[in-house]
Amino acid sequence: MRKGQFTVTFPTAPTIVSTGVTGGPFEGKGNLSHSFDKVYDDFYVGQASFEKAQKKLLESAFNIALEKGNIVKEDIQFVISGDLLNQITSSSFASAAVDAPYLGVFGACSTSMEGLGLAALIVDGGHADCVLTGTVSHNGAMEKQFRYPTEYGSQKPPTAQWTVTGAGAAILKANETGPKVTAATFGRVVDMGLTDPFNMGGAMAPAAVDTILRHLEDTGRTPADYDVIITGDLGKLGHSLSLEMLRDRGLDIPDDAFQDCGVLMYRENQGVQSGGSGCACSAVGMYGHFLQQMKEGHIKRMLCVATGALLSPLSYQQNESIPCIAHAVVIEQEGGTV
Amino acid sequence: MRKGQFTVTFPTAPTIVSTGVTGGPFEGKGNLSHSFDKVYDDFYVGQASFEKAQKKLLESAFNIALEKGNIVKEDIQFVISGDLLNQITSSSFASAAVDAPYLGVFGACSTSMEGLGLAALIVDGGHADCVLTGTVSHNGAMEKQFRYPTEYGSQKPPTAQWTVTGAGAAILKANETGPKVTAATFGRVVDMGLTDPFNMGGAMAPAAVDTILRHLEDTGRTPADYDVIITGDLGKLGHSLSLEMLRDRGLDIPDDAFQDCGVLMYRENQGVQSGGSGCACSAVGMYGHFLQQMKEGHIKRMLCVATGALLSPLSYQQNESIPCIAHAVVIEQEGGTV
Repeated sequence: MRKGQFTVTFPTAPTIVSTGVTGGPFEGKGNLSHSFDKVYDDFYVGQASFEKAQKKLLESAFNIALEKGNIVKEDIQFVISGDLLNQITSSSFASAAVDAPYLGVFGACSTSMEGLGLAALIVDGGHADCVLTGTVSHNGAMEKQFRYPTEYGSQKPPTAQWTVTGAGAAILKANETGPKVTAATFGRVVDMGLTDPFNMGGAMAPAAVDTILRHLEDTGRTPADYDVIITGDLGKLGHSLSLEMLRDRGLDIPDDAFQDCGVLMYRENQGVQSGGSGCACSAVGMYGHFLQQMKEGHIKRMLCVATGALLSPLSYQQNESIPCIAHAVVIEQEGGTV
Repeated sequence: MRKGQFTVTFPTAPTIVSTGVTGGPFEGKGNLSHSFDKVYDDFYVGQASFEKAQKKLLESAFNIALEKGNIVKEDIQFVISGDLLNQITSSSFASAAVDAPYLGVFGACSTSMEGLGLAALIVDGGHADCVLTGTVSHNGAMEKQFRYPTEYGSQKPPTAQWTVTGAGAAILKANETGPKVTAATFGRVVDMGLTDPFNMGGAMAPAAVDTILRHLEDTGRTPADYDVIITGDLGKLGHSLSLEMLRDRGLDIPDDAFQDCGVLMYRENQGVQSGGSGCACSAVGMYGHFLQQMKEGHIKRMLCVATGALLSPLSYQQNESIPCIAHAVVIEQEGGTV
């Protein structure tokens, strides 16, 4: 990476050889129901608590990725994972079963692409040949921790989003055939002074725009170089806001070439206000739906921009603003231009 | 890294060109008072809350590392940071000021060496030339979050440890003179089923031993190849336990070649039970005291093993065990054998 730039290129183009995507019952009824390898019809995923359910969703995604890729745990040289539960216990507990060197990461809802970008850094740098990465969220565990106990049935404003119950994992290998990770733009912390925790999309939009603009500048590309630019969980409001901001900067982006996993996740009649959110939102959308689209030949090159709000309930209570971040990863079809 | 191994070697030997170490008033009266670049004589570090104080300690350590290294923020290509405050807000907020691509990480008290090892992976892989990494803890913020409000004045058992108020940061660069990072052994999650949150040292000891044994096996070295093996914050109990476990495995380690930052941090009369702990404990000890010892010629090669307990207050309340981890980094004097 050249000084002053934010984009790392991966000349060896590590390959996503396998993914595992799990979801809860509500997600299984959503728009992206076809994205899941496994949908649990029990909100508790057969566990005694929301937190145990969150761990189980990730464990299951890890195991599915291993099985689908015909890879045994002993082949995994690093597991990179993180989530929004305090002290990322779901990730640490689920990673214990993989029994490989573990790198805990935290990027709030940008964790999926932080993990994938980091995995690509390690594989492309020649330090490992096979890395597992993943993230998870559970609506019950997250609403309880970040907002109000769900039993309160408290009302939400239209800008609020719905935490996705699900998990997404990917295995990255050197020298394989399949979708390639060719570059990553790691975002900086962007703080616009916003303080409304019920408008995460609005808070995160400037971070998404910052990373996309830096990516295009660093690579000398235009939006036309991508079949689709996908954000993680901006929701309806944040997504239209960021599109407006990008167009204000003179970028020509057709509506259908700019998508958001949070907007796509649920059906109109599911009553989720502005859309989906949570660590799993981008992971399910990108590792599930969009990689399927690529495998079916509909997408040749995509820019996956996962967005995260780096607040905590305590920082909000102490009147801190909501700093945000976005990490972007370029995924290209086998044989696409690297 | 070869399959089945846990140790990555860094042929380019990235250099620690600068460090910044800050501490609170209690630490300034401790055994390692000479380790700090700056000691604050106010427990609140001039801030309105413990949490703001924690952020300030890290910001200050970042700034000192930049100043001492004569490096401007624009030279930093990645900032890698994490801490134990929920959603690592201290790290995210402090990193905002650096304005570089930010990788949030979480390894509990092993975060210091997770960050340094990751920085070395990135620099050695040729993806960046200049990376800043750091971590922080504040006694007030951590005791409040993990144990009881300090105002309760609750009694602690002799196995309990004292969270270090401080921060440590390091800047890693390619092709410079100074202490070299030549290898890292990233640990796996080790869960021995222990559940007592007032005996972290005992819980973490097996993880430290696991990483040290794997490091020696991977590298074909013996403890005699190191002037000192340093653990992060096992405290008196965990440290003596891990030494015993290593000797049981037939390793010949003299007492003075096996040190623990938590044991060293405070004086006997400071009443800290088993010793220091917290993310800053290893960072202050390793980036402060032990790097000074290396610069003064007393140490040629050291293995820095930061240990972390991957629990949360909630996971403890839900009767989960305490999974632990240890990340080890080899630091060698300029001109030492790589």
